[in-house]
Amino acid sequence: MYQPNAAHHRSWVNVSPDSDFSIQNLPFGIFTMSQRLPSLCSAIGDYIVDLKAVFDLGYFHTIDGLSGDVFTQKHLNHFIELGKNVTNAVRLRLSQILNTNFPENAQKEASQILILKSEVQLLLPLEIGDYTDFYSSRQHAFNVGSMFRDAANALLPNWLHLPVGYHGRASSIVVSETPIVRPHGQSKLPNIEQPVFGATKKLDFELEMAFVVGKNTNMGQAISVEQADDYIFGLALFNDWSARDIQAWEYVPLGPFLGKNFASTLAPWVVTLEALEPFRVANPVQEPRPLSYLQSADFCTYDVNLTVTIQSETMENPQIISASNFKNMYWNMRQQLAHHTVNGCNVRVGDLCASGTISGEQRDSFGSMLELAWQGTQPLSLSDGSQRSFVEDGDTITLSGFAEKDGVRVGFGEASGKISAARKS
Amino acid sequence: MYQPNAAHHRSWVNVSPDSDFSIQNLPFGIFTMSQRLPSLCSAIGDYIVDLKAVFDLGYFHTIDGLSGDVFTQKHLNHFIELGKNVTNAVRLRLSQILNTNFPENAQKEASQILILKSEVQLLLPLEIGDYTDFYSSRQHAFNVGSMFRDAANALLPNWLHLPVGYHGRASSIVVSETPIVRPHGQSKLPNIEQPVFGATKKLDFELEMAFVVGKNTNMGQAISVEQADDYIFGLALFNDWSARDIQAWEYVPLGPFLGKNFASTLAPWVVTLEALEPFRVANPVQEPRPLSYLQSADFCTYDVNLTVTIQSETMENPQIISASNFKNMYWNMRQQLAHHTVNGCNVRVGDLCASGTISGEQRDSFGSMLELAWQGTQPLSLSDGSQRSFVEDGDTITLSGFAEKDGVRVGFGEASGKISAARKS
Repeated sequence: MYQPNAAHHRSWVNVSPDSDFSIQNLPFGIFTMSQRLPSLCSAIGDYIVDLKAVFDLGYFHTIDGLSGDVFTQKHLNHFIELGKNVTNAVRLRLSQILNTNFPENAQKEASQILILKSEVQLLLPLEIGDYTDFYSSRQHAFNVGSMFRDAANALLPNWLHLPVGYHGRASSIVVSETPIVRPHGQSKLPNIEQPVFGATKKLDFELEMAFVVGKNTNMGQAISVEQADDYIFGLALFNDWSARDIQAWEYVPLGPFLGKNFASTLAPWVVTLEALEPFRVANPVQEPRPLSYLQSADFCTYDVNLTVTIQSETMENPQIISASNFKNMYWNMRQQLAHHTVNGCNVRVGDLCASGTISGEQRDSFGSMLELAWQGTQPLSLSDGSQRSFVEDGDTITLSGFAEKDGVRVGFGEASGKISAARKS
Repeated sequence: MYQPNAAHHRSWVNVSPDSDFSIQNLPFGIFTMSQRLPSLCSAIGDYIVDLKAVFDLGYFHTIDGLSGDVFTQKHLNHFIELGKNVTNAVRLRLSQILNTNFPENAQKEASQILILKSEVQLLLPLEIGDYTDFYSSRQHAFNVGSMFRDAANALLPNWLHLPVGYHGRASSIVVSETPIVRPHGQSKLPNIEQPVFGATKKLDFELEMAFVVGKNTNMGQAISVEQADDYIFGLALFNDWSARDIQAWEYVPLGPFLGKNFASTLAPWVVTLEALEPFRVANPVQEPRPLSYLQSADFCTYDVNLTVTIQSETMENPQIISASNFKNMYWNMRQQLAHHTVNGCNVRVGDLCASGTISGEQRDSFGSMLELAWQGTQPLSLSDGSQRSFVEDGDTITLSGFAEKDGVRVGFGEASGKISAARKS
């Protein structure tokens, strides 16, 4: 049987070895260009794959349940709703069409499905009903707890027993490269009794990945850890921008609100769980042992290298400020989804569940500026000679990520955002 | 000029003096019945008003920007998006058609637009993009703070400076009369080190009202308190069901999650801001004076009587357990919306912003069972001889509310839900 992930597959499309978009990846997204309404695409090398064009050439004719309409949507939701039988068949078929084994005389026709990525605009891939943010990296929770309390009591009592999460704002999730305006808000200075109002002075990023719900549930229905993979379509890079001064003043007792909901940046590409299969690794050992609804015989997560770069307007090149890994998560996605639904909370296709900031154990793998500069006490030095405790106007923050094994690379593209000055208030 | 709110208006439809649905109200909702797809309606007395039928009779022909399609939708969103010029004109026209002044020979034709409420099913009126819950009743915040901390430090430092709020779950908001299944979850007993899993033992209601966003903003755009009325379409009763034991264990530091997101109940009727105009009253004095973006020359709120009843399966009639008032809110809706958007967070038509539990100063006006039975220390006695510290299986909790002045009553219908036993786990 043809396995789209097999390492020996090569494409007749030229794919650089360091491209995120090998023939083993084939993620899904939404593109537009002049004279074209938003439409579904995949990616290979420097090209996007126009899925409506693939359909119109008849290459999907063997797949039941597909109509051309589903490829001319503004979001992936309808496509995802067709179910993994269909979406996996589409990915498998793309892999066959793009393979060097595809008849050479047909490759010329098939090249019509390719458009240079530089010629298209990638859009927000999902209509996001609900967005949930978890807090599942132990190092991140420890770092934040150490800064705000003390290292001996850094983890709160519930943290090792459940994947802490909260609901975030869906309306302000934007696609990569959307400018981020520095938000205003209230904050409290240490020596002044009254709060002050103004543009945040502590703008931060959070290095996260988000999984996309792939199947609806009814209210009252719980998804077990064993069932969770069926309900997860794929993953994307996610930057949960945060204004630390606003957040610090508002968040007790009901959690983050205006410190987070001004904007979050999602990458344009959703990489399927199936493409990530070769990169499974064991989950960290969980001690104390969680309650049974959070346990599974084959706990696993994925080995995905994650990088954050910063580039100020005076820097010639982006500079890496964090190198982390998705496997640094203590609670995995399956546990997050099982926990999220154990009370009967329903989920819908397109819902986004973000991991929380993914920090590794070393300083240079911390996933936020708050941690990297340790609350401003150890500012980062940038290549233009400036220093950073938080993100400044004109800075571009870019998250990227890829898994690599046996010479096969499956990457996530970028979630990038440039900060523009606060509006005049 | 014809004023739809004028107290002297009477309808040729028989409306009982204690009906919520006087000719001065004319709220909006969605109904369905056999052979009918979901469709927009208003209400008068014991009838719903079929708005597509009104349109088909040509009664809306003087209103620009209206097509019949907008009345045969599953949600009010498209209608609301037409803007207050249109929606207010529709309400005004309904008031004219239903008025005793409407020509008697035309009343017979017009009676085709009426359907007995008992013959229809009312549906969730909105497609809710994002749901926000505030925490704006001072007495509620004080009560909860007193129980969990102490009376001297009941209000947290930020509470008097900003309307504390957080994001909730949109997917699990259901219309009145949808059964509510007792949720499972983790909780922590005081004397046992490990958390336990099971059905909540502390199921609670929260007496709230929610406002409906009536106009989109772009990211980066702040709505001032003066502009807020333009962006608020109307209000509905809202019960933010809560599992106090699950909530207590999970909510530090990121706020409520599974303790809330299993279900919230929304009333089927959205009462317009315009219908509430005669019931404006002054806002409570706010001391300390809030920051300027939260100030307004004519702060006001609305005088709306709110009632909660409980009925167990063995009680013959519902019993009132709380009588509160919307004017008990410290922070008003305009301030909530100004605060919500001051950081540039965008809002969308159909977004729901709930008030938080509305508790008055007296014990019998507290808006949750947690407060009414004071954390189980003072259980309520019900007419069937039983006692309640929290909500039990088989109990029906019903919120209702109305404003009344000069013999005119404008009511909100009911937000009702009956608790069914937890599923077998």
